[in-house]
Amino acid sequence: MQFEKIAILGVGLIGGSLAMVCKQKGLAKLIVGYGRRPENLKKAVKLGVIDRFFQDLRETVQGADLIVMATPVGQFEALAREMAPALSKEAIVTDVGSVKGSLVTRLERLLPNGSRFVGAHPIAGKEKTGVEVASATLFVGTQCILTPTERTNPSALESVKALWEATGSKLVLMDPVQHDQILAAVSHLPHLVAYALVNTVLETKVQGQEVLPFSAGGFRDFTRIAASSPEMWRDICLLNRDPLLGMIEAYEKTLARLKQLIRQGDGKGLEAEFERAKEARERSGRCNAS
Amino acid sequence: MQFEKIAILGVGLIGGSLAMVCKQKGLAKLIVGYGRRPENLKKAVKLGVIDRFFQDLRETVQGADLIVMATPVGQFEALAREMAPALSKEAIVTDVGSVKGSLVTRLERLLPNGSRFVGAHPIAGKEKTGVEVASATLFVGTQCILTPTERTNPSALESVKALWEATGSKLVLMDPVQHDQILAAVSHLPHLVAYALVNTVLETKVQGQEVLPFSAGGFRDFTRIAASSPEMWRDICLLNRDPLLGMIEAYEKTLARLKQLIRQGDGKGLEAEFERAKEARERSGRCNAS
Repeated sequence: MQFEKIAILGVGLIGGSLAMVCKQKGLAKLIVGYGRRPENLKKAVKLGVIDRFFQDLRETVQGADLIVMATPVGQFEALAREMAPALSKEAIVTDVGSVKGSLVTRLERLLPNGSRFVGAHPIAGKEKTGVEVASATLFVGTQCILTPTERTNPSALESVKALWEATGSKLVLMDPVQHDQILAAVSHLPHLVAYALVNTVLETKVQGQEVLPFSAGGFRDFTRIAASSPEMWRDICLLNRDPLLGMIEAYEKTLARLKQLIRQGDGKGLEAEFERAKEARERSGRCNAS
Repeated sequence: MQFEKIAILGVGLIGGSLAMVCKQKGLAKLIVGYGRRPENLKKAVKLGVIDRFFQDLRETVQGADLIVMATPVGQFEALAREMAPALSKEAIVTDVGSVKGSLVTRLERLLPNGSRFVGAHPIAGKEKTGVEVASATLFVGTQCILTPTERTNPSALESVKALWEATGSKLVLMDPVQHDQILAAVSHLPHLVAYALVNTVLETKVQGQEVLPFSAGGFRDFTRIAASSPEMWRDICLLNRDPLLGMIEAYEKTLARLKQLIRQGDGKGLEAEFERAKEARERSGRCNAS
């Protein structure tokens, strides 16, 4: 498989890493980038991540046979709308977004050939963001969820599969709605819980003094999670609203249950809850991040 | 400063590391250990962490001029009660527990010479527990909170200060009640939040399937925190009940606020919350764990 021209929309950690894999494996004759910040795109060219960049979206996608949306997920619909007139009929459009669900249906409708859209979500990431930390090995051993629908063109799906197989990630195919429910639980809820925790601690004063200077290891893990891109997480929360609200409510119930055990001084009950949580560690998956 | 005999009650990560510092700095002529599991104490002797061990508490503390309680905090009162008749009048008793508050008052009352009890809480820890991972450098650069009261004998306080200074930790003196409020915010709440998150995710099924196999980086940080000792955290929750319940309620309010922003689709409001949380990272403390 070789593409004539791959267009990466948003050349950050994920988009940049995917471009590097394509370069390294010779998957494209030309890799071009598009983004909001020219200085970032210049850096991407200098680092050899992309061959050249454009600041005009339609020019970027003109003649491209693969377009990868790798901006924050809230921009996908506007991108689809804007690039639609410039897309060639056979172009495959894919993405790396953390939300699928009804967004996939909307994107299928917005694109001139919706059957050639294939949703993808590589479950990979790093603490740091930006093209500077992009790496051709970022996806090795991680999971990549593909969310084809009834409409999806089988040959477009095969191409997107081959693309992600080339990154070294393990492919999982699932329904877009199922994807959003699972991610709400294992990724979106944890981030929201971390944001809430960090802001609660920031707001806490004891005898008029901030408590932050006494924060220890456990808390610092939360601040690391809560240091993720506010824009990206705003988009995820808004676009995956209902599954996320459902998970927050499930979480509130668990927390209320623990609170009740503490209030009642139920040591046995607390220890059983904590034992259960401890066991999850050995059982939890082995993929990367976000 | 040199003690004749230091008795470490509970020779795990913290008790063992403190014993190693005392050995290395020649702070004691003899270091003895006491604990529930003889195989662990044998290991501690073999590793050179302690000189010998006892399975009888009174024998352990007999003739000791420094006793360090390093078991889970829920056992301190029983230990104090049991060892009281065997303690020499001049013996200094200290601890490494995560809860102080009224427990300090109760310990002062239970011990024959309560003024020679000095509460200490090294804010240090590791992912792993047990004497095998103890280290003489565990406390270097971390904070150690001492909680002397009006009753505390000044020379006992000086000795305990010198002990912790020898570990390389930075001393902070505060009121036992203030300690518990601060730790409820920066340590106990984060652990509880992690336990609740992990158990919520464990209970979640999507289309009859567990979601755990899809867990990614953010979630795995939570499972790490939630892998802490259930017994230790049970004791902390029970003994620091009221400050912890107060913090859980503050947390529930923050979470409800975020939930409301999501429900209303308030992207600007969400982004502002996430920006604030992100800034905490640069501002948070630089000490170790738990």
